Amino acid sequence: MTFFDIQSINPKSPAEGVEMRIIAGEKMTFVFFNLAPGAIVPEHSHSHEQIGTVLKGSIELSIAGEKKIVTAGGAYHIPGDVIHSATTQDEPSEVIEVFSPVREDLMED
Amino acid sequence: MTFFDIQSINPKSPAEGVEMRIIAGEKMTFVFFNLAPGAIVPEHSHSHEQIGTVLKGSIELSIAGEKKIVTAGGAYHIPGDVIHSATTQDEPSEVIEVFSPVREDLMED
Repeated sequence: MTFFDIQSINPKSPAEGVEMRIIAGEKMTFVFFNLAPGAIVPEHSHSHEQIGTVLKGSIELSIAGEKKIVTAGGAYHIPGDVIHSATTQDEPSEVIEVFSPVREDLMED
Repeated sequence: MTFFDIQSINPKSPAEGVEMRIIAGEKMTFVFFNLAPGAIVPEHSHSHEQIGTVLKGSIELSIAGEKKIVTAGGAYHIPGDVIHSATTQDEPSEVIEVFSPVREDLMED
């Protein structure tokens, strides 16, 4: 498929208040997140490199122990195998993240 | 660097009305585009895979000869070596595109 309407993609919900809509490439995975206020993505790591940006709202990110509240227009880079976590602040938020290589773990139905 | 304010990144302007703000990873390149009305990215191709999404405004995309106007919330996937072009419609537009592997050609000053 070439063209997508992101909100029409069937979402995955890996945690309460976290909706992921995924576009899988061959070398990278694109994820659009809708996050409810207070939603938590717990501390984790993966070998995949990650770049993200906040479109709406804000998230508190912790990357290798460095904490920062990222608001719309902010972006971040997380090298592979670096521990990170995120918590949505008090408003619904939208975040785009991309991963390389492909997140095969997100491809299961 | 871990955290970025996208609009503070020094932009490149490869064509009239096209501003690119780039975050370079090791396996992928993230680009935030500010596009003026009527800005044109002429037909081209590259070996890098590309995934993009429109945040504001709209662009007319041509991907391997398939044309579509993509508006905010729309996304697209362009495999490597596929010819594509884009034209902004009548309003300023914002687009995010990611490429893998890294676009070394965009890393020059």
